[in-house]
Amino acid sequence: MAIELKGLTKRSENYSQWYNELVVKADLAEQSAVRGCMVIKPYGYAIWEKMQQTLDKMFKATGVQNAYFPLLIPKSFLCREAEHVEGFAKECAVVTHYRLKNDPNGTGVIVDPEARLEEELIVRPTSETIIWGTYKNWIHSYRDLPLLINQWANVMRWEMRTRMFLRTSEFLWQEGHCAYATPEENEARTVQMINVYADFAEKYMAMPVIKGVKSANERFAGALNTYTIEAMMQDGKALQSGTSHNLGQNFAKAFDVTFANKENKTEYVWANSWGVSTRLMGALIMTHSDDNGLVLPPHLAPIQVVIVPIYKNDEQLSVINAAVQPILARLGELGVSVKYDDADNRRPGFKFADYELKGVPVRLAIGARDIENGTVELMRRDTLEKEVLPLAGIADHVSALLEDIQENIYRKALKMRQERTYVCDSYDEFKERIEDGGFFLCHWDGTTETEERIKAETKATIRCIPLDGDDTPGVCMVTGKPSARRVIIARNY
Amino acid sequence: MAIELKGLTKRSENYSQWYNELVVKADLAEQSAVRGCMVIKPYGYAIWEKMQQTLDKMFKATGVQNAYFPLLIPKSFLCREAEHVEGFAKECAVVTHYRLKNDPNGTGVIVDPEARLEEELIVRPTSETIIWGTYKNWIHSYRDLPLLINQWANVMRWEMRTRMFLRTSEFLWQEGHCAYATPEENEARTVQMINVYADFAEKYMAMPVIKGVKSANERFAGALNTYTIEAMMQDGKALQSGTSHNLGQNFAKAFDVTFANKENKTEYVWANSWGVSTRLMGALIMTHSDDNGLVLPPHLAPIQVVIVPIYKNDEQLSVINAAVQPILARLGELGVSVKYDDADNRRPGFKFADYELKGVPVRLAIGARDIENGTVELMRRDTLEKEVLPLAGIADHVSALLEDIQENIYRKALKMRQERTYVCDSYDEFKERIEDGGFFLCHWDGTTETEERIKAETKATIRCIPLDGDDTPGVCMVTGKPSARRVIIARNY
Repeated sequence: MAIELKGLTKRSENYSQWYNELVVKADLAEQSAVRGCMVIKPYGYAIWEKMQQTLDKMFKATGVQNAYFPLLIPKSFLCREAEHVEGFAKECAVVTHYRLKNDPNGTGVIVDPEARLEEELIVRPTSETIIWGTYKNWIHSYRDLPLLINQWANVMRWEMRTRMFLRTSEFLWQEGHCAYATPEENEARTVQMINVYADFAEKYMAMPVIKGVKSANERFAGALNTYTIEAMMQDGKALQSGTSHNLGQNFAKAFDVTFANKENKTEYVWANSWGVSTRLMGALIMTHSDDNGLVLPPHLAPIQVVIVPIYKNDEQLSVINAAVQPILARLGELGVSVKYDDADNRRPGFKFADYELKGVPVRLAIGARDIENGTVELMRRDTLEKEVLPLAGIADHVSALLEDIQENIYRKALKMRQERTYVCDSYDEFKERIEDGGFFLCHWDGTTETEERIKAETKATIRCIPLDGDDTPGVCMVTGKPSARRVIIARNY
Repeated sequence: MAIELKGLTKRSENYSQWYNELVVKADLAEQSAVRGCMVIKPYGYAIWEKMQQTLDKMFKATGVQNAYFPLLIPKSFLCREAEHVEGFAKECAVVTHYRLKNDPNGTGVIVDPEARLEEELIVRPTSETIIWGTYKNWIHSYRDLPLLINQWANVMRWEMRTRMFLRTSEFLWQEGHCAYATPEENEARTVQMINVYADFAEKYMAMPVIKGVKSANERFAGALNTYTIEAMMQDGKALQSGTSHNLGQNFAKAFDVTFANKENKTEYVWANSWGVSTRLMGALIMTHSDDNGLVLPPHLAPIQVVIVPIYKNDEQLSVINAAVQPILARLGELGVSVKYDDADNRRPGFKFADYELKGVPVRLAIGARDIENGTVELMRRDTLEKEVLPLAGIADHVSALLEDIQENIYRKALKMRQERTYVCDSYDEFKERIEDGGFFLCHWDGTTETEERIKAETKATIRCIPLDGDDTPGVCMVTGKPSARRVIIARNY
C-alpha cells in the first residue's frame, strides 16, 4: 500500500476535495467496485474499532446488551408502520432471487428465473421492523420490561450521491432498540442515549456538539420525537452525528406488541431507537484535520506515539535501540499505544510526512547526537510544534501531553464553533451570510412551510431546537410570526 | 423473556431435538421471520462476543489487521475463478433492484421495475472475489507484502435445510485474507492459522480437535489445499469447526494481482484465506452440554459465577448482602465475572434451574444459617456436585475451581472422543458400526471415486487426513488398493 504524500489539496482551495483526498491518502478508505460502497482500510478500521469499543462499554454501563437480527427484512414488514415505509421503503437493495445458474447461451452465470422469492426481501436500511416483529414474542408481561438491546451491523440505503464515510450505500453502525412499560421511562432512555453520544463526541472525538430536538420535518420516519447531536465542520457546515428517537407506541401498534401491566391490563409497549455510524469517521476527520493531513484525538488514535530513530549505521541504530527500550516499556505501563518505526526501507523524512498525514498525535525522533546529549525531539501533531526535551522522563511527559492535546483540539474546535455561531434576526442578512457557513441562531415560527421555504431559498435547514441555551421567545425572522425560542439553522452534510 | 425450564428432551431420546430445544430454552437464539435466518439473543451473543474478542486478539498477535469490504459482490466477480463460481455462485441471495414504489393497484409497496440493476449483485457468500479485486490496487511491489487482513462480517448462503448456529442462511464469521510473495510463506501462514484455531478450540472452548487436510473433494472451491479442525460431538458425529485454505495463485491470476519482486520481475501473488463462524456456537453447545442444559467452559462463560441469596425477610437479606459484598469485590479483583442475583420476583429453586440451563459454571447459594456457620454452598455445573465450604477465602477457591472445571470438561470431551475413535480395516465392519457414530481411522486409496462410494453407501465422509498420528501405509478398506496412511471417516454436521 504505497502512500502518496504529495499534493493534498488545501482546505482553503477546495474543502470538499481536501476531504476526499485525505480519506484516501491517509489510508482510511477507498471506493469499491460496487457503486456507492467503500472499502474501509486497516488504518481507518482501527479508528472505527476504537470508537466501537468505547461506545460499546458506554452502552453496557447503562444496562444495554448486544444481540443480532437478520440482514434481510420481508417487504411486508416495512409496510406495517405508515410513516416508516414512506421514509425507508424507497431507495433500498431488493433481493428477488435465491439462485444463479450457468448461462445456457454462453459462459458465466445468470439469475435462475425459477428461483424467484414469493416475497421480496430488503437489505435492512434500519431494523425497527424486524426487531419489533421479534419483540412481539419476547414481551408479554411488565416483568419482561425494560428490554435494552443494541446491535452492531451493516445497513444499506441506496444513496444517489455518495461520499466516503459521510454518505455511502452500505455503512456500519449500531442501532439500539429499547422497550419500556411507561412513556416516562421511555423518554428518559431516549434522552439518556443522546447524552451518551454527546459525551462520547466530546470526551473521545474531542468534538463539541449541540444537543437538540429535530423539527417535525426532520424527524426519523415513525418517531414522535428525534434528538440529535450536531457538530460544526471546519467549513462551517453542520454534521448530524447521532440521533435518538422516541418512537412512542407506533411500532408496538404496528407489530401488535403488548404486555400485561401490574394490574394485569393489556397495554402497548413504548419504544425508542438510537444510532451512530461510520459517519462519525467523517465528522472526526473534518473537525480536526489540517492541510498536512489527519489530526487524531489521542483518545481514538490507533497509534498515539511514534518513535523514529535517525541513524547512519547499525552501530548508531543499536545505541538508539537500547535507549528506546525503556521508553517503550514505560509507555506500555502507562497504557500509551506506541510504534517504534525502525524500518530501514524508508527515510526519516518520509516517515515524518507519513505519520503527520496519518495524524499520529506525538512523534519522537532520536538521533545519535540526542543519545550523547540525553535529549529527544518531540513534535505534537496538533500544533506541529517541535521541542527538544530530556530523554529522562520522556514517557511520562508524553503521557501527560496526550491529555493536553486531547483538550487542546477540543478547545480549538469549540472556539471555531463559537466564533462562527451567529445570532441573526434578519432573513436578508441570513441569506447573505449563510454563503460563508456557520450556525445561525434564529427565531422560527415552528411551521414546516417556513422551514421548507428557508431550505428552498438558502439550502440551509433547521438543524435542531437546542436543549440548552437561550429560550427567550421572539418573532420568526422569515414570517414575523411568534417564535418560542431560537433554533439553529445551517447548511449541512 | 420468560424462560421455559421444563421438558428439555434427553440426549438419549432424541439428540437432534435436545439440541434444537436447548438453543431456544437457554435463550441463545431463535428462528426469525426470515427463512433460514436466526436471531441471536443477548445471552447467545454474549458468548459469541467472548469468542470474537479472544480470536481477534489471537489474530492481531500474529500481525493481522482488520478491515471491511462491501456486502454486495458484482455477479461477474464470482465468475472470475472457475472452481469458485461452481462452489459459491449457486444458492445465494441476488439483489436485482434498488427501489420500491407505492403499489398503484393497492396498498403497500412493490418493486419498481424501472429500478433494475444493470448487473445483479450477490450478498457475499465469502469475500475472496471482492477482496482480491481490491488487492489488485494495493499490491504492486514486494514491499507491499505480506498483506495480513481479517474481516468480521455477515455472509449469506441460501441453505435449503437449516439448523440454528450449525447451518443458517445468514451467519456471522471472520474471514482472513493474506497475500504473500512466496509459496513457502503462504503455506506457513495457512498452517499457522489452523493452529490458532486449534489452540482457541482447546484452550477456550475446551473442545479437543483433530487437525488435518481435506480430501480434494472436500476442499474450498478454488483452493489448492484446505486445512481443517474436526471435533467430535456427543452423538459421535464430526463437526468441521474451522478451515484455512491455501489458495495458491488462483485468485491472483483470476484478478490479475501481480507484484514486482526484489529482482524487479513480475510475479503473481500467493493467497490464503481462513475462517470460523457462529457455527462454533453449535460446536460449543454440543461438546459439553447435558440433559440439564448448557455446560459452558469458564473461559467463554459470560457469567462465570452466580451468587443466589436465600432469605425469608429483608433483615436476613441485608445480612447476606453484607457478607456477599467482599466476595464480589474479591472476585472482581481476580477477574472473575460474577452475578449476584438478589431479584425478589423469582424463587431460589427457579433461579437454580435457570442458571443450570444456562450453563453458569459455578453457583454459590448463601442462606441465613450459612452466615451463622460461616459457610456457603457451592455447586459446579460440570459435575452438578454440591459442597459446603467456608465463606472465608471462597472467592479465591472459586477462581481456582474455574480453571479445574475448564480442564475437566476438556478432559471429559477428549476421553469421549478417544473412546469413540476406532481403527477399522473392514468395510463391512465399518458399515455396521458407523450407525452408532464415532471417528473411524481407516485406510483409503486416495480416490474421489472411493470417497463418493463411501458417502453414498454410509452417509459418512472423509473428515480429514490427520496432520499428526499414525502414518503407516496400508491398503484401502474398500478397494484393497494401496493407502498412504489412515484417514478419519465419520458422519458429520
